[in-house]
Amino acid sequence: MNKLIVDAASQSYPIYIDSGLLTQTNLYRNLVQNRGVCIITNETVAPLYGSILKETLAKSGGNLNQIEIFVLPDGEQYKTLATLETIFNHLLQNQFDRNSLLVALGGGVVGDITGFAAACYQRGVDYLQIPTTLLSQVDSSVGGKTAVNHALGKNMIGAFYQPCAVMIDLDVLNTLPDREYASGLAEVIKYGAIRDAEFFCWLEANIDALNRREQSALAYAIERSCQNKAEIVNQDETETGIRALLNYGHTFAHAFEIELQYGTWLHGEAVSAGMVYAAKLSRQLCQLAEDDVERLEDLLLKAHLPTKIDASLNRDHLLHHMALDKKNQSGSRRMILLKRLGDAVVVKDVRESEIRSVF
Amino acid sequence: MNKLIVDAASQSYPIYIDSGLLTQTNLYRNLVQNRGVCIITNETVAPLYGSILKETLAKSGGNLNQIEIFVLPDGEQYKTLATLETIFNHLLQNQFDRNSLLVALGGGVVGDITGFAAACYQRGVDYLQIPTTLLSQVDSSVGGKTAVNHALGKNMIGAFYQPCAVMIDLDVLNTLPDREYASGLAEVIKYGAIRDAEFFCWLEANIDALNRREQSALAYAIERSCQNKAEIVNQDETETGIRALLNYGHTFAHAFEIELQYGTWLHGEAVSAGMVYAAKLSRQLCQLAEDDVERLEDLLLKAHLPTKIDASLNRDHLLHHMALDKKNQSGSRRMILLKRLGDAVVVKDVRESEIRSVF
Repeated sequence: MNKLIVDAASQSYPIYIDSGLLTQTNLYRNLVQNRGVCIITNETVAPLYGSILKETLAKSGGNLNQIEIFVLPDGEQYKTLATLETIFNHLLQNQFDRNSLLVALGGGVVGDITGFAAACYQRGVDYLQIPTTLLSQVDSSVGGKTAVNHALGKNMIGAFYQPCAVMIDLDVLNTLPDREYASGLAEVIKYGAIRDAEFFCWLEANIDALNRREQSALAYAIERSCQNKAEIVNQDETETGIRALLNYGHTFAHAFEIELQYGTWLHGEAVSAGMVYAAKLSRQLCQLAEDDVERLEDLLLKAHLPTKIDASLNRDHLLHHMALDKKNQSGSRRMILLKRLGDAVVVKDVRESEIRSVF
Repeated sequence: MNKLIVDAASQSYPIYIDSGLLTQTNLYRNLVQNRGVCIITNETVAPLYGSILKETLAKSGGNLNQIEIFVLPDGEQYKTLATLETIFNHLLQNQFDRNSLLVALGGGVVGDITGFAAACYQRGVDYLQIPTTLLSQVDSSVGGKTAVNHALGKNMIGAFYQPCAVMIDLDVLNTLPDREYASGLAEVIKYGAIRDAEFFCWLEANIDALNRREQSALAYAIERSCQNKAEIVNQDETETGIRALLNYGHTFAHAFEIELQYGTWLHGEAVSAGMVYAAKLSRQLCQLAEDDVERLEDLLLKAHLPTKIDASLNRDHLLHHMALDKKNQSGSRRMILLKRLGDAVVVKDVRESEIRSVF
């Protein structure tokens, strides 16, 4: 089993990566004893892994009477304050106290909303991340960014709140649909693009193995992604500096997601196209080589990901959405761009006309 | 001007105490420059102090176009997720970014909800506390406890999130209704009861001056209260230990407030009665002297505060509400009780029958 440590300013916690983690009772022993446990999952994941996990937690020493499963509807469109409120209602109606443990069993939506519920419930309870999609395993489950969406912007309401542990079970990827799997690869490729050129080359050489979901390639790609993410979070938990680099492609992606309505594109698909537009902008503003733009686009295409938006999408709307991005400061438009593959930078005062030109 | 420093684990910040702070432009200079500012207040306070503060902030170097006032309805019944959402809507519709400053201008409800909005908006923006009631000046504006209520419990959803400064202007108390003023005195008296016997004696000697709102007595009482609170917060920001002592009387008080419906009693009135019941319980469980119970009750009565609940209030309901208190851990009922005036302790495993006997 691989074990990484996230050593953030507010809290230090382990990430475990292996197959079969959902049934390894000893992993959970210290986490569940003497406290109420509420597993929060969704209607897709619950029938696949809900009972297995509940049984493991009971065998780990948890009190079966205090282990509940709360099932959310599945989809980004439910990552809202309204859904959050249903979680609070459930926890209060069942008298979960401040010593309780929430367990996020699902993809990024479940993880983000459960983490935010944990951050706010009785001013903060512990939570455990058990990500069940590749995207959440390599990205959202690590680093403590929690949030819900608002009609006027993605992740606009949330908190930095670290989990007490992250359990990445490789086996759960067997049930992941192809599009969702590819969506996760977009974030894996992002780590190569922004800070790990060697990993980017490895991905170019191993993309076929990853597409076939070969376990050893997958374990390596996930570990290296989490390692990259942990290194960044350790340096900058609350995104006052270098953590912003993780948003490479995301300013475009969030605008695409809002304009298309959440759910049309998967998050990783939007990020994939967003990274290509950001690379084109990088060519203009940061002298990124044309060859690097093409290598990025090629790798994303080989991973079965979209690399451009439909010509019919309203450019003015996209620019408006991008103006509201959280990375902007006091009216200045900030973007994450690439100097070369493996080397991202924050660029301030990007002009609207420059963004418009890459559309 | 008196200046205290709160030196909490997550952040250090000043508390200023003086008359005329709402118009001292130099105090705000570093806080408002180069950022959007949203003053959040309520319909009662806005006409009294909204324009004055806005003008001061503009003179301090803030951009008048970026200083907005958002007015909430007045009352504890509006301290809800629904009201919080109206704040988020306003901030997003007006493109307030992550660098913005929220200013809480009002009592405890405005402070708690604004602080929680600041904790969550774009995963955290700065906020400034300008408390306009005695209760919020000596209690809720200091220490970073933010929250909204839930139908099933007070302050059940919130965060520990410190302000960047607290401005306590004594002049605003001139417009405070008598009942609200007395309600604030309940929390002042609490500091004496739980950890400052000398201050308790001073309060007994000066209660008439305080009732007359004499400025020098008031300035001393507020400063000493904030000093007590700051000392506790410095040691235990997130209430894992001694901070719980601040909740003396509050487990009873919250139950009274829920059962009476929020708003029937002011918070300080509920705390006043709660402290007396907690004192009676302390006599049984911690050998608090009968004389100390009477001194506490006398002082509260002299401050024009209630010391008991109506005989018609349903005791079973009250006990049920108390069982859901945040201080309880894994089913054990914890209470803050007094060994003597000026010395509070946490008592675990208090039995329901013992609480029932003091009603």
